[in-house]
Amino acid sequence: MIRIGIIGGAGYTAGELLRLLIGHPDAEICFVNSSSNAGNKITDVHSGLLGDTDLVFTDELPLDSIDLLYFCTAHGDTRKFLDSHSLPENLKVIDLSMDYRIKAIDHDFIYGLPELNRRNTCKSRYVANPGCFATCIELGLLPLAKAHLLQSEIYVNAITGSTGAGVKPSSTTHFSWRNNNMSIYKPFEHQHLPEILQSLKQLQPDFNGEINFIPYRGDFARGIFATIVLKCTHDIETIYKIYEEYYERDSFTHVIPTPIDLKQVVNTNKCLIHLEKHGDKLLITSIIDNLLKGAAGQAVHNMNLLFGLEETVGLKLKPSAF
Amino acid sequence: MIRIGIIGGAGYTAGELLRLLIGHPDAEICFVNSSSNAGNKITDVHSGLLGDTDLVFTDELPLDSIDLLYFCTAHGDTRKFLDSHSLPENLKVIDLSMDYRIKAIDHDFIYGLPELNRRNTCKSRYVANPGCFATCIELGLLPLAKAHLLQSEIYVNAITGSTGAGVKPSSTTHFSWRNNNMSIYKPFEHQHLPEILQSLKQLQPDFNGEINFIPYRGDFARGIFATIVLKCTHDIETIYKIYEEYYERDSFTHVIPTPIDLKQVVNTNKCLIHLEKHGDKLLITSIIDNLLKGAAGQAVHNMNLLFGLEETVGLKLKPSAF
Amino acid sequence: MIRIGIIGGAGYTAGELLRLLIGHPDAEICFVNSSSNAGNKITDVHSGLLGDTDLVFTDELPLDSIDLLYFCTAHGDTRKFLDSHSLPENLKVIDLSMDYRIKAIDHDFIYGLPELNRRNTCKSRYVANPGCFATCIELGLLPLAKAHLLQSEIYVNAITGSTGAGVKPSSTTHFSWRNNNMSIYKPFEHQHLPEILQSLKQLQPDFNGEINFIPYRGDFARGIFATIVLKCTHDIETIYKIYEEYYERDSFTHVIPTPIDLKQVVNTNKCLIHLEKHGDKLLITSIIDNLLKGAAGQAVHNMNLLFGLEETVGLKLKPSAF
Amino acid sequence: MIRIGIIGGAGYTAGELLRLLIGHPDAEICFVNSSSNAGNKITDVHSGLLGDTDLVFTDELPLDSIDLLYFCTAHGDTRKFLDSHSLPENLKVIDLSMDYRIKAIDHDFIYGLPELNRRNTCKSRYVANPGCFATCIELGLLPLAKAHLLQSEIYVNAITGSTGAGVKPSSTTHFSWRNNNMSIYKPFEHQHLPEILQSLKQLQPDFNGEINFIPYRGDFARGIFATIVLKCTHDIETIYKIYEEYYERDSFTHVIPTPIDLKQVVNTNKCLIHLEKHGDKLLITSIIDNLLKGAAGQAVHNMNLLFGLEETVGLKLKPSAF
Repeated sequence: MIRIGIIGGAGYTAGELLRLLIGHPDAEICFVNSSSNAGNKITDVHSGLLGDTDLVFTDELPLDSIDLLYFCTAHGDTRKFLDSHSLPENLKVIDLSMDYRIKAIDHDFIYGLPELNRRNTCKSRYVANPGCFATCIELGLLPLAKAHLLQSEIYVNAITGSTGAGVKPSSTTHFSWRNNNMSIYKPFEHQHLPEILQSLKQLQPDFNGEINFIPYRGDFARGIFATIVLKCTHDIETIYKIYEEYYERDSFTHVIPTPIDLKQVVNTNKCLIHLEKHGDKLLITSIIDNLLKGAAGQAVHNMNLLFGLEETVGLKLKPSAF
Repeated sequence: MIRIGIIGGAGYTAGELLRLLIGHPDAEICFVNSSSNAGNKITDVHSGLLGDTDLVFTDELPLDSIDLLYFCTAHGDTRKFLDSHSLPENLKVIDLSMDYRIKAIDHDFIYGLPELNRRNTCKSRYVANPGCFATCIELGLLPLAKAHLLQSEIYVNAITGSTGAGVKPSSTTHFSWRNNNMSIYKPFEHQHLPEILQSLKQLQPDFNGEINFIPYRGDFARGIFATIVLKCTHDIETIYKIYEEYYERDSFTHVIPTPIDLKQVVNTNKCLIHLEKHGDKLLITSIIDNLLKGAAGQAVHNMNLLFGLEETVGLKLKPSAF
Repeated sequence: MIRIGIIGGAGYTAGELLRLLIGHPDAEICFVNSSSNAGNKITDVHSGLLGDTDLVFTDELPLDSIDLLYFCTAHGDTRKFLDSHSLPENLKVIDLSMDYRIKAIDHDFIYGLPELNRRNTCKSRYVANPGCFATCIELGLLPLAKAHLLQSEIYVNAITGSTGAGVKPSSTTHFSWRNNNMSIYKPFEHQHLPEILQSLKQLQPDFNGEINFIPYRGDFARGIFATIVLKCTHDIETIYKIYEEYYERDSFTHVIPTPIDLKQVVNTNKCLIHLEKHGDKLLITSIIDNLLKGAAGQAVHNMNLLFGLEETVGLKLKPSAF
Repeated sequence: MIRIGIIGGAGYTAGELLRLLIGHPDAEICFVNSSSNAGNKITDVHSGLLGDTDLVFTDELPLDSIDLLYFCTAHGDTRKFLDSHSLPENLKVIDLSMDYRIKAIDHDFIYGLPELNRRNTCKSRYVANPGCFATCIELGLLPLAKAHLLQSEIYVNAITGSTGAGVKPSSTTHFSWRNNNMSIYKPFEHQHLPEILQSLKQLQPDFNGEINFIPYRGDFARGIFATIVLKCTHDIETIYKIYEEYYERDSFTHVIPTPIDLKQVVNTNKCLIHLEKHGDKLLITSIIDNLLKGAAGQAVHNMNLLFGLEETVGLKLKPSAF
């Protein structure tokens, strides 16, 4: 059993992580640290687990008792923690914040997108779990990057569910506002762009990085639906072949010849990708569940890699479908 | 023109009131008082009015310049205001809070449900605008009360849209929680029960008042859908006749022989009522838009009565239907 | 491995059953019979399984090759099938239609509500899987029936998701109509009432059967949210004790002291029950996922019982929560 | 009073047209022709009008009794009708189908986008009412076309409500599928592209017509939310000035300096446009209600122009806001 600690257990990604780990045959949750909820039951916050667990939040940090520490902290807080604590030797870390996703000389975190860095993740000790938009968009583009086919500007439109905005109520997550509504935010400037660029350049170093990315707030709770358009001179059969070869060893990312819709991936750890050619344009549709493949599911996937398990353990989830 | 002031202009009912008054041919909005928003445009808060108005919130209270003062204040605040201010003679008041809905010797407010108190409202100066649940449930029961047919316990289940919970974000109005969810709150103890009892006893003084009322939080924004079940020995034709006679002079409340659904009233000032008899039980379905017939629409209706206008002026709204 | 055949594989319950069985460690799907879809891939219809299965619908019926036959047929069609086919000896049957839910001398089906008939199901060969509303309402009332406390009329209001209406498009499942809408159907006359009465009388034979049941069409896809009100002279502590004792051996039904909301059970096989006392009234809230505990999940639960497996195998599902 | 006939009265646009005309002070509905509904009440189909009208569908066509004939027919059927009927002299026509939107020598219809062809519409007798996507996208681009600034490819992503797909139930308008879902259809090939190109070339004849348009099915009922991206060397202040000048005489189209969201226009006849510059890219957001500005509202606007009324008569609608 992998003994696990979680820091920051009250948010949405922590909840999803707990829902996954409770059903994971090789995971044992040793503590869930949440200063604001210390003493409360997990189910007081994550009530979908009623009947499944008696776990209680703690403000203690028995780091010596665990093999793996998950950070479900706000951006910036993982770095603050690691700057002020020394971790036991051999303790592994998976960070779901964005603190260590960009390579730098001051840290050893690997960018934990298995479809890009599986081999290195297996040998790693520190994993920076990718962002949700980043995961969805990178998976839509990596095969082209590997084939050095990113030769034009890229136009990305991606619609996210409300859980991407976190548990704290706000005007843009107010039901009265968001229900049946549509809007955009941070166009061309979303904070996931740097990690997307880093990943694409890892495979195609000459990529010039022009990504015109418009994120949308969708009126649904789970999922990211992304369309990507770019110029491409290859025919569609060749493109499909490139994608199928890229993902042939991957358990969760599938290239689909028919048009796809978001609910095909909701409550799964899958990424589905569909491709069409229209004139000189390649249209890529890429969909994930933002809380799973875009966060906690990928974090468990990375745990499986870190500890030498079959990568799908605990992640063969029943799709909710509806 | 009726010159109008509004106190507490940033909430949902104030927004709906503004949307109505801007289209009302006999209304002139003189000021909208909001301490927190003073200096901001109305459209900064009520952005559905973009292109319709250049009004600006104020922290001033030029009460001498107006004919009618609307209170869109939090419960308790109208009373505080009136206790600490003296109003100009002849200034009329419509209060959308619940402060003066219950008759008492210390105030002269009339309970402004036109289907119950139209005549008195016309002669009144102070109107307490009914609550949304109260309006929907009272309209479903008043004809029976007038016929003294409330002789058993009454079972009420009523589902409200999220706008009933106000503009302030909270955990139960968080989109991620409320979307596709269902829950109840304050069962048997909702704060509108006293005004419902008062209205029913006004017509049937011997009513013993046993109402088992379960309010539900619906996963939609607008509307209240109520079912009411009670014992009744009369046949359905007689019951329909009683309802049709009761509402024959009313412009907004209609008795409908076919089953009804909530969107038939959304964005209208209507109340639709459908009746069925099953064995010895009478099933009443009653539906309104909580922001219109349940709040701002009824407040404009009351204004029309106070100032001697045709009661439907400004309230013949296009149903949204979808 | 339990070798499984499914008849009627294109509907919603069949889809959910397939999504469960594909993840069930002891199940092997041998054939999925659908005359209209013969030759098509399962994923053409149940696209949430893209990447999970290569199964193809068939119009063949190799009944000799299987241990268990599921009927996901329209009401009436299971009976027609069994009247016109003879099944191999030892082949077990679970019928998700309503054809055999009511006891009769012309059949040997057991009513497969594990919380009521677990022991008999384990010894049975034919199981009639309960209806979704019936499951939710019976679980809310069985402990009282066992204690012979059903001594007054019962008032039930239950809101169902759109998947309860099946895959065939219709005016009341049209998105434009149902979105943000609310309505009722078949009040006092729902077809699940007979099985509910049968189950309650099984434990309390003198129950007089007055159930005033109003079903609602909810504007969500999955789940049933039911409130039940009846007179009860016992105090709430006693009632809780009765419920906890009744369900203490059950894996999926939990009695919860805090108010519950529908999404706590969505995408799980759980039933959650909450109890409150108000005056002389007992208020019971009971919630399930209509496709799981109300259909396919219970059908897998019954399979586990029929074949002597631990009853939770394949049913420890990650709640979707959002 | 304008005496009005409607052909094809059972669909969504006809319903919206009826809801508008019933509240229009200068309109008198003389007949609503629907062969399938002849003899039924209008409110049997358009139940949001319960209490508002006693109109009955007819299969007669008293064309001599009217001043204006609306076609709310399926695409192709207006042409069939006009090919087989001769209209009374002076009878005016507004066609909501797409049959006559493209200029041709065999017809005299004017393309009824008031912001483009107001003057000609006023002098016209036959109006082809623009498509919903076309209206939203054209209004987002016309000021640039007039300034001859369409010098690069244009990337359009536009999300439509389910009412755009019509009243006939189908798999992609099934609530169970569409709720909380997202998908695209007809990418790069939508049938509104020709009218969009025609309108842009009317103002900028050298426009080369490269529009990469991806339509999305949104999980809401009303509205179109479009983003448009293209290269533009002018600074944002200049661009705003161009748009404000273009629309300064228009009653319903407003250029808004702050980010916009779809519900700001729902249940109104408005188009709101917001502009941002990011590097060398201009981002245009354009939103309308597909049933109003995108169909029936624009059709009433065109009626007002044809008959010399103030263009906003009957169209100052209360925004639903929620």
